[in-house]
Amino acid sequence: MLVTKVIEKKRLGGELTANEIHELIRGFTEGNVADYQMTAFAMAVCIRGMTPDEISALTLAMLESGDKLSREVSGEVPRVDKHSTGGLGDKVSLVLAPMLAACDLHVPMISGRGLGLTGGTLDKLESIEGFQTQLSGDAFDTALRQNGACIVGAGPSIAPADRRLYALRDVTGTVASTALITASILSKKLAASLDALVLDVKVGGGAFMQTIDQARELADSLQRVGALSGLKTSVLISDMDQPLGRAVGNAIEVNESLELLEGGTPRSKQLARARQLCIELGAMLLVDVGRSPDEEVARETLAQSIDNGSAKEAFLRMIKGQGGKLTGPLPLAPKHTVTATRSGHVEAIDCITIGETVVSLGGGRRNAGDKIDPKFGIEMNVAVGDRVESGDLLMLLHCSADTASDYTALLQATVRLADQPVAPHPLLIEQRPSRTLGESR
Amino acid sequence: MLVTKVIEKKRLGGELTANEIHELIRGFTEGNVADYQMTAFAMAVCIRGMTPDEISALTLAMLESGDKLSREVSGEVPRVDKHSTGGLGDKVSLVLAPMLAACDLHVPMISGRGLGLTGGTLDKLESIEGFQTQLSGDAFDTALRQNGACIVGAGPSIAPADRRLYALRDVTGTVASTALITASILSKKLAASLDALVLDVKVGGGAFMQTIDQARELADSLQRVGALSGLKTSVLISDMDQPLGRAVGNAIEVNESLELLEGGTPRSKQLARARQLCIELGAMLLVDVGRSPDEEVARETLAQSIDNGSAKEAFLRMIKGQGGKLTGPLPLAPKHTVTATRSGHVEAIDCITIGETVVSLGGGRRNAGDKIDPKFGIEMNVAVGDRVESGDLLMLLHCSADTASDYTALLQATVRLADQPVAPHPLLIEQRPSRTLGESR
Repeated sequence: MLVTKVIEKKRLGGELTANEIHELIRGFTEGNVADYQMTAFAMAVCIRGMTPDEISALTLAMLESGDKLSREVSGEVPRVDKHSTGGLGDKVSLVLAPMLAACDLHVPMISGRGLGLTGGTLDKLESIEGFQTQLSGDAFDTALRQNGACIVGAGPSIAPADRRLYALRDVTGTVASTALITASILSKKLAASLDALVLDVKVGGGAFMQTIDQARELADSLQRVGALSGLKTSVLISDMDQPLGRAVGNAIEVNESLELLEGGTPRSKQLARARQLCIELGAMLLVDVGRSPDEEVARETLAQSIDNGSAKEAFLRMIKGQGGKLTGPLPLAPKHTVTATRSGHVEAIDCITIGETVVSLGGGRRNAGDKIDPKFGIEMNVAVGDRVESGDLLMLLHCSADTASDYTALLQATVRLADQPVAPHPLLIEQRPSRTLGESR
Repeated sequence: MLVTKVIEKKRLGGELTANEIHELIRGFTEGNVADYQMTAFAMAVCIRGMTPDEISALTLAMLESGDKLSREVSGEVPRVDKHSTGGLGDKVSLVLAPMLAACDLHVPMISGRGLGLTGGTLDKLESIEGFQTQLSGDAFDTALRQNGACIVGAGPSIAPADRRLYALRDVTGTVASTALITASILSKKLAASLDALVLDVKVGGGAFMQTIDQARELADSLQRVGALSGLKTSVLISDMDQPLGRAVGNAIEVNESLELLEGGTPRSKQLARARQLCIELGAMLLVDVGRSPDEEVARETLAQSIDNGSAKEAFLRMIKGQGGKLTGPLPLAPKHTVTATRSGHVEAIDCITIGETVVSLGGGRRNAGDKIDPKFGIEMNVAVGDRVESGDLLMLLHCSADTASDYTALLQATVRLADQPVAPHPLLIEQRPSRTLGESR
């Protein structure tokens, strides 16, 4: 049987032809390749890896398992998007999409839900009463034309082979594969008919990629396969050894996004980092689509979109366009202080425990289908490198009064204090414009 | 989820604990571990391998997924069995089981059906009218007590986890794994409550193991895991670069078995090889259960069992005991000659094409569930090393007259002729008594 031969070839570490990969994914999509065959294949790919040509074929095969959005509605307007590999407190999509819309670009963003520690953009937006994340094709085009940005979930017609495979990988120990991650990300992004994509590859204790080498491997793969697929793909590798911004949760991150969109000098260095990340990611896109001559100018343009209020207007227009009713900061659960039990310098922040606490409170999902309560969350008051005195505020916990004490000691321990001064962690680790690939070859 | 963690551990090449393996197989047996999880695990095992301790745990877990035959019926009588990794023309079970029964041993043989090129013992026996391969536990014990040997298929209660996993491996490219093959073979053999087992590991063009290194790896694994499981396990590595004996097919192999059991000097060197293999394998068992002081004596005892007619009596008793009606050689399809188109020395015989021809005629199975016609088959007239003149008989093809000509050229090409003399291939490549392991450690 053909499919068995293809699986065997990969088991032995061979390079599959584009045709073999397309046949396999077509068979999977049409039900002729069983789930148990696909997971054996996924495992072989996890261990043996894939060449850029193979990953490119897999990406296109998964794209072709479904529909591609028409770019007709955008006409001459460049279509751009940002994707992040996921991190704690990552609300960049909520801020950057309207910034780009304010710069007269189209942002047709197909986003995901949270599973595990890191929240999903759709979950955060659904904290807003009435906000719709499932739109028909026409409604999506209308929203994009009127508001410039539109953030929705992947409908059943977007890369269905990827959706099924992703669900299988989650329960078969086959998530950690550069090849499969690359194909999963890019097949969905290609389905949005983008002109340029920027990828925020997070690295650190709160990220899927724990080491810079892993992050670089994924960045290489995404850029090579993006290039092979004809999509301008730039990558920013950024720090995820501590939450991004101060807010971790759903409603609380919408509120922080609103604060960021107010513009002006950020009230804390955590907010300054979040603002900087939005600007850096956006700048790579503005250069890639030729809207700005260089990144310096692009940064200026994006900063202005925040500071002159046009990005906030675009945000409110996008929310309203998708049915959301947002009149000001969203209500949160009551806040409870978590303070330092000793003095010291913040050496590390345990993102995993902070994420698990939010999930455990009901602000995240353990299983697909779990309901989320958006009112719960955490506001960080410290960052790596800060000097803290005993009794100082470490974070605010938003939860019901009867559960707060259960978490206090756990959360205190998430902020590791050293006796010696600690250098702050740089936010930007590596920037790779889409042109990098061509130059380095 | 626990099962995902176990799969991930093996993906990364870690060594699993016995408990992890037992939990996994128990979950699979009870339906809590899905087929698509098991195949991902099987692929990880194929690529990463397993230690003897892991394979031993897997073997015991698969054994414990079902029932173990009681050895009560045997009392003080040693229970022995032979297993072959499969080869063309391999009718050893049909001859050796009654030889051992004639030596007053019990042979509770749980055997398999043919799939692919090599025929199955059960298929060969079912060429005999009325022969039953599915017996109740009581009927099996009665047959064993009365006839000494009983050859049946594995009922649904014998290592059901192995049966399900085997079917999945067949369609997911995960057959070729020393660990999984070892556990599959030994779990079923342990279920028969044996005292000693001899394994015939075939190597060559007509075998699953193509190289001596692969055969040695499997032999090592089988002996180590057999020892860990408390089963005396000896191994014979034997040549499979040409069919064993002259007959390849179903009814034709029953007839050849009858001829072998007639005793006396074999009428050809191919039959002498088949007789020798039966005696060598049996001798290792007789020594292992203490029935013979050494292999020289054991060989003599086994040769006598053939030559004095007691093995043939045991064969006919076994056939009758399982409902078979055998009064003489079975009818075959008409024979057609395949002759040499040139002269030369037989350098190689293409077992794969010969096996495929028999399958293609309807004498074998492409898919589980295919019906077999036992009348079709091939009788080889040459062996590696033979001198052949143009026009000499290479083989007889038993098939319907209208199809014979379709295969003539194909079959002629299976006998590769060289101009220079070729040395015959030795039958016995490596003999490893069960004590080998202890000595070598």
